[in-house]
Amino acid sequence: MTVLPISAEAISQAVAQALREDAGAGDLTADLIPSGATGHARVSARESCILCGTAWFDEVFRQLDTDVAVRWHGSDGEAVAPGTDICSLRGSATALLTGERTALNFLQTLSATATAARRYVDAVVETGATILDTRKTIPGLRDAQKYAVRCGGARNHRHGLYDAILVKENHIAAAGGLRQAVESARHRAPSVLLIVEVENLGQLREVLACRVDRVLLDNFSLEEMRQAVKERDAHEGNRVALEASGSVDLDGVRETARTGVDFISVGALTKHVRAVDFSMRFV
Amino acid sequence: MTVLPISAEAISQAVAQALREDAGAGDLTADLIPSGATGHARVSARESCILCGTAWFDEVFRQLDTDVAVRWHGSDGEAVAPGTDICSLRGSATALLTGERTALNFLQTLSATATAARRYVDAVVETGATILDTRKTIPGLRDAQKYAVRCGGARNHRHGLYDAILVKENHIAAAGGLRQAVESARHRAPSVLLIVEVENLGQLREVLACRVDRVLLDNFSLEEMRQAVKERDAHEGNRVALEASGSVDLDGVRETARTGVDFISVGALTKHVRAVDFSMRFV
Amino acid sequence: MTVLPISAEAISQAVAQALREDAGAGDLTADLIPSGATGHARVSARESCILCGTAWFDEVFRQLDTDVAVRWHGSDGEAVAPGTDICSLRGSATALLTGERTALNFLQTLSATATAARRYVDAVVETGATILDTRKTIPGLRDAQKYAVRCGGARNHRHGLYDAILVKENHIAAAGGLRQAVESARHRAPSVLLIVEVENLGQLREVLACRVDRVLLDNFSLEEMRQAVKERDAHEGNRVALEASGSVDLDGVRETARTGVDFISVGALTKHVRAVDFSMRFV
Amino acid sequence: MTVLPISAEAISQAVAQALREDAGAGDLTADLIPSGATGHARVSARESCILCGTAWFDEVFRQLDTDVAVRWHGSDGEAVAPGTDICSLRGSATALLTGERTALNFLQTLSATATAARRYVDAVVETGATILDTRKTIPGLRDAQKYAVRCGGARNHRHGLYDAILVKENHIAAAGGLRQAVESARHRAPSVLLIVEVENLGQLREVLACRVDRVLLDNFSLEEMRQAVKERDAHEGNRVALEASGSVDLDGVRETARTGVDFISVGALTKHVRAVDFSMRFV
Amino acid sequence: MTVLPISAEAISQAVAQALREDAGAGDLTADLIPSGATGHARVSARESCILCGTAWFDEVFRQLDTDVAVRWHGSDGEAVAPGTDICSLRGSATALLTGERTALNFLQTLSATATAARRYVDAVVETGATILDTRKTIPGLRDAQKYAVRCGGARNHRHGLYDAILVKENHIAAAGGLRQAVESARHRAPSVLLIVEVENLGQLREVLACRVDRVLLDNFSLEEMRQAVKERDAHEGNRVALEASGSVDLDGVRETARTGVDFISVGALTKHVRAVDFSMRFV
Amino acid sequence: MTVLPISAEAISQAVAQALREDAGAGDLTADLIPSGATGHARVSARESCILCGTAWFDEVFRQLDTDVAVRWHGSDGEAVAPGTDICSLRGSATALLTGERTALNFLQTLSATATAARRYVDAVVETGATILDTRKTIPGLRDAQKYAVRCGGARNHRHGLYDAILVKENHIAAAGGLRQAVESARHRAPSVLLIVEVENLGQLREVLACRVDRVLLDNFSLEEMRQAVKERDAHEGNRVALEASGSVDLDGVRETARTGVDFISVGALTKHVRAVDFSMRFV
Repeated sequence: MTVLPISAEAISQAVAQALREDAGAGDLTADLIPSGATGHARVSARESCILCGTAWFDEVFRQLDTDVAVRWHGSDGEAVAPGTDICSLRGSATALLTGERTALNFLQTLSATATAARRYVDAVVETGATILDTRKTIPGLRDAQKYAVRCGGARNHRHGLYDAILVKENHIAAAGGLRQAVESARHRAPSVLLIVEVENLGQLREVLACRVDRVLLDNFSLEEMRQAVKERDAHEGNRVALEASGSVDLDGVRETARTGVDFISVGALTKHVRAVDFSMRFV
Repeated sequence: MTVLPISAEAISQAVAQALREDAGAGDLTADLIPSGATGHARVSARESCILCGTAWFDEVFRQLDTDVAVRWHGSDGEAVAPGTDICSLRGSATALLTGERTALNFLQTLSATATAARRYVDAVVETGATILDTRKTIPGLRDAQKYAVRCGGARNHRHGLYDAILVKENHIAAAGGLRQAVESARHRAPSVLLIVEVENLGQLREVLACRVDRVLLDNFSLEEMRQAVKERDAHEGNRVALEASGSVDLDGVRETARTGVDFISVGALTKHVRAVDFSMRFV
Repeated sequence: MTVLPISAEAISQAVAQALREDAGAGDLTADLIPSGATGHARVSARESCILCGTAWFDEVFRQLDTDVAVRWHGSDGEAVAPGTDICSLRGSATALLTGERTALNFLQTLSATATAARRYVDAVVETGATILDTRKTIPGLRDAQKYAVRCGGARNHRHGLYDAILVKENHIAAAGGLRQAVESARHRAPSVLLIVEVENLGQLREVLACRVDRVLLDNFSLEEMRQAVKERDAHEGNRVALEASGSVDLDGVRETARTGVDFISVGALTKHVRAVDFSMRFV
Repeated sequence: MTVLPISAEAISQAVAQALREDAGAGDLTADLIPSGATGHARVSARESCILCGTAWFDEVFRQLDTDVAVRWHGSDGEAVAPGTDICSLRGSATALLTGERTALNFLQTLSATATAARRYVDAVVETGATILDTRKTIPGLRDAQKYAVRCGGARNHRHGLYDAILVKENHIAAAGGLRQAVESARHRAPSVLLIVEVENLGQLREVLACRVDRVLLDNFSLEEMRQAVKERDAHEGNRVALEASGSVDLDGVRETARTGVDFISVGALTKHVRAVDFSMRFV
Repeated sequence: MTVLPISAEAISQAVAQALREDAGAGDLTADLIPSGATGHARVSARESCILCGTAWFDEVFRQLDTDVAVRWHGSDGEAVAPGTDICSLRGSATALLTGERTALNFLQTLSATATAARRYVDAVVETGATILDTRKTIPGLRDAQKYAVRCGGARNHRHGLYDAILVKENHIAAAGGLRQAVESARHRAPSVLLIVEVENLGQLREVLACRVDRVLLDNFSLEEMRQAVKERDAHEGNRVALEASGSVDLDGVRETARTGVDFISVGALTKHVRAVDFSMRFV
Repeated sequence: MTVLPISAEAISQAVAQALREDAGAGDLTADLIPSGATGHARVSARESCILCGTAWFDEVFRQLDTDVAVRWHGSDGEAVAPGTDICSLRGSATALLTGERTALNFLQTLSATATAARRYVDAVVETGATILDTRKTIPGLRDAQKYAVRCGGARNHRHGLYDAILVKENHIAAAGGLRQAVESARHRAPSVLLIVEVENLGQLREVLACRVDRVLLDNFSLEEMRQAVKERDAHEGNRVALEASGSVDLDGVRETARTGVDFISVGALTKHVRAVDFSMRFV
């Protein structure tokens, strides 16, 4: 499975920061290991998950000692069964010991997001709806989490405030009306997606009359969503996409998808983290 | 409640990075708001929590516009009831809109850790045991999460590999025996805490005969822990502290505490995040 | 005139870098000025231009001495006549002398871009076409130049490779056909603008049958552009925007605009720089 | 041709910044290319120029994928005829596509400066005068532009305020006279070049009586310059170099050179940029 | 001899900064050397010393040219006799010339600290006392100097304020008494060493009754130290370590060690630097 | 006394780095002080010295708490008698305790250099010779030490390899002779000082015939220096300055100065550090 790459520089900086946090002034305990000693270790998953974070894991050991060799048995985005070995490592024993926790911290955190994303994607399979993430992310991990979301098979909403326009009530009021807000937005930033948030069907109708790319249905009931889809389909002119937003959980997401909305955005993918349990054993 | 401060520079850098992630090349939508407009907003907690992250929240708005005023009704470490307003903000409307998500992301992530820590601390109240965190943290958030742990009333284990020694099986084998490992560690790094991990009572007895500061009981059963405490108490010479380690969850932690161990380290405090639900409303 | 703000942090870093370049280890000559001396200076434009870069100019002096006061007689985006004073400065004489060149370098470079943009915008006035910039920018100045383009009244194309999709021949070949490329792009990145580049009318017709947001007409003749507009208008379904691209210069841009295309992207706005002549006089 | 090297670290940082600008969160379109695909491309110059920037170009692809091979047919400082292939690239197709624009942006910007410098150098050939650059540079590109100036065959004036002293009217007034200013400057900074700016022949005579290294003739007419050279030659004691400064353009530079001045400093070399037209074709 | 490693990233950053200081905008003189020329050089010590800093030395040349080969005849921590060759270098002549001073600056500074440390260690040999460093270091070189101290055979006190607690008079007063201060410190930071500073024997007795790890005897006379050791030995319960602190010089350190204290901390190791004289000769 | 300013940004970064070294994850002990407590402290010099580093000292406390007020009784470059109070501080007690060591480390290190410089300057008073520093500096402190040298009354040699040319034997051999080396250097870098190193009087005579700015007499005896001065004075044409270089110590420097050389460069000023003893007392 191919997913959009994240820049090597971003990975390198994140790993350098994490190593600084954990091994800043050196690993006091690793000094007990003779300097020439080599080791061999295996990493396994103790629970079912979608693997994510292998490039960060590799980079941890590369920064500690370029001679550590990591051999992977799977790649980002693959499903892993409990008890499966996912990689083996050979190289300097001190590098393996010093890097262990930092490398696993990346793996357990990013696999958590990929795994959550996959669950939502599986829940809406064959409904035609696409699961999106949100900007509710762990500070400092925005791009990495968005990558993990893609590994899980879900898709990215805008990355930040700078790559799409999302017009809300405040903006409409400030612009002196919906039409003015939409026109002003189109004019100022003609090269980005234009989304408008609505809170009821009346507002939706108004928006359908303008030229926007997507409408975000904020906290609509299932019944309201179905009605929204119907009205959108009946509308002539450019087809506008519909996005369901609000506190959709894994239990309710399929029913939401079946209303016919195009997108469902889920904050839980990235704001919560339930670390996947990986372990490294020295052999 | 006073907790150890985290450096202003660390907060400033983390906030700058998070703002870059979210508002890098500017906030396209905020441009619809007239540049001189001011606003007033309130942040409330939608669920019960321990507040944490106010300094990061403040710094977000300070970096966007030094004239935004934030008035807090509580401080880090305080318990907050659902529906309570925790702060109000006044200032540039665009600054409030641009900073909203980044500021809330810090608050919801750090309050998550403080809240989890408080639950474990409450569960062991009056047992004499102290809850510790681990090095299983979100990459990039080590110091901030360790601060949140303290806000929740739990205590910090070592920050990283550099500020305590934790001798495990590999180190003992490499050093040619427990006594040699302990002596070598004491000699090399006389100014840090020396901890030895043991996997059974036989190993514990060996360690008690050496001069270490703490013994980490790895995956001991409750019965083994009780026996460990008994043997430690019977041992003459320097009193060695005992730390229970392994997958202790909130349900089992009190029983663990009652075995008489001094410390219980809990990975779940910092490796999992269950974001607290805060919202900002414009008034 | 309001334009999208650029982040204060980005300005601060760019200015710090420029001051390091110019005044790294100190200003040897300024040391001849007594340390308490104050000065008064005026900056004027020696030629007609659109002003741009005042925030960078201010930041230069702020970083040298927070007590320097700059009073502006105009703001970014305003037209300035030759010989006009645009600001006056009062404060430490050494700060004024040390900052002069760095501050003027920002002003002359960014005003150059704003001025060029305004000329193109004026040339297409009332044609309905919008002038866009490109990714052909001076390395290190992308965001600042894109800001200057907006100050000049033109609009921004995508900022980089990350905030819109532009499908070219290679991508179509790799994806196994136009339809597959478009579907794959829509699926992978549903939250960004989708543009397809075509080199002739045959390709345009194919693209009109797919669901894309914009078509880039690469090096079309005026006659081909007129035909493209006609075919687009005749096409049922979602209205697709048309962008003229290629080496359009100031003389030919109006004729291009009159073909009815929606956008004209102009590399010359940002790849060439004809510095505006400003001078600072001490009074 | 050998030119003074610029530090590898400076190049690496400039390239990392430029890639961040262009490909920050990833290249959305390149994701349509299968991950294992390789490509082959050629870069050619569409107009006559002096090549400059090959190290930056190389570094762009090195940071994206260390396996991309770039083979150059020329090196920095060489003249290139229109239509000439200057290099060919082989490697990962996505790396080639992602790096194309950033790599060309460096090449077109730096070759612009080298080309302009060469034109001025050619114009004064065999006059004995040396063309110098100034501190009027694009912010962030000072060192790279100064390198390009050398590639074009011209020479560098001081890099910044820290590596030479240039005494102007304000400094003389503040120091209480020319002689005092010169002595104070010599005393404070004995290891750097000492230049004094004069605005007329009277001032020149005064300066010739002091011990300075160079005199900058500010906006002198051709006749005044000839007279200045004559008086300098007639002066006994240390030979002082003369530098013509002001708005010398390419048409007038040879006549200026023939007045006998040693140096002519030209702001246009680095404050203006007329990007050279390069293109990359995939084969 | 094995010493605790310092992180490769820290070395790389320190070297990059030092090269920027020395060779920022390029080495003007090295440009006189033909670009393809290679050279061969030898570094020798002109005085007796303990070698330290080889990794920084290597990194200087690695950053300038990855093809320079450095062959060492000794390693960090080894004693070197005057006149001994310590390494030879082969590679680009310009790289050798450009890196010479920066590489030697690291070697002469760090070997200075290792040499000073070895002298103190030798002076207390077989007394049972351990020589420690302090936080009186050269700003920016804390970790490197602490590494040099270990190379010299001495040991590190705490690295900074964050990895041990040192309770002084002010803290005791603020906490409302010694016992309260100790308990509060233990409670807040159970995972770090707890040291209390005392100024007389009365205070020592009080501290022995609490549970601390070490007592710092501030400016005790030799007689007072002997008495302190006697009282500590007589005390039942946990054995507390004793550290002599104050202006101990090389002449007096052995007598101090013979009082029976466990540790002697010496500010002179890191606050003074008497650079070792190394020279590089081209052959 | 006025000395060339060092950039505020450089000071701020050096202080941030030093605080990170010392107080990275927080000051564990300062947490025992109640958070609102304020304190008052005095810093005094325990030995005679030239004060240097006040801006770094101030910045330490500014970064910890903007409300700490430091009142100085002297300024950089002033002589201080033993036992003199040099400043008093008022503000947050924790800020004073946390910043104490870092602030003193800057003061004791930089005052060491200023004090050493003053001693050499005093030793050559009224001889007409100027004391210069060298590039033998503590890595990371180049600019700060060069500032301290100026505070002590000595002057700076070149800052690094980039702001003057120093031609040695290797360069002459590579260029094919002295004359060629000098001409090539003048041509390539006309805006910097040109110095040539000679090892005997024969070489000096050759250099006097070329047009260089200064000659460095490497390890000349006193007698050879006197002869060198005589020959230089007898030489017609541009007056060339003479610099004595080698291991000149404080005892021999006056005799060296009396030979009539213009400059004496002294590595000991910056490669050795004998920290000045300052103490902070809380009152």
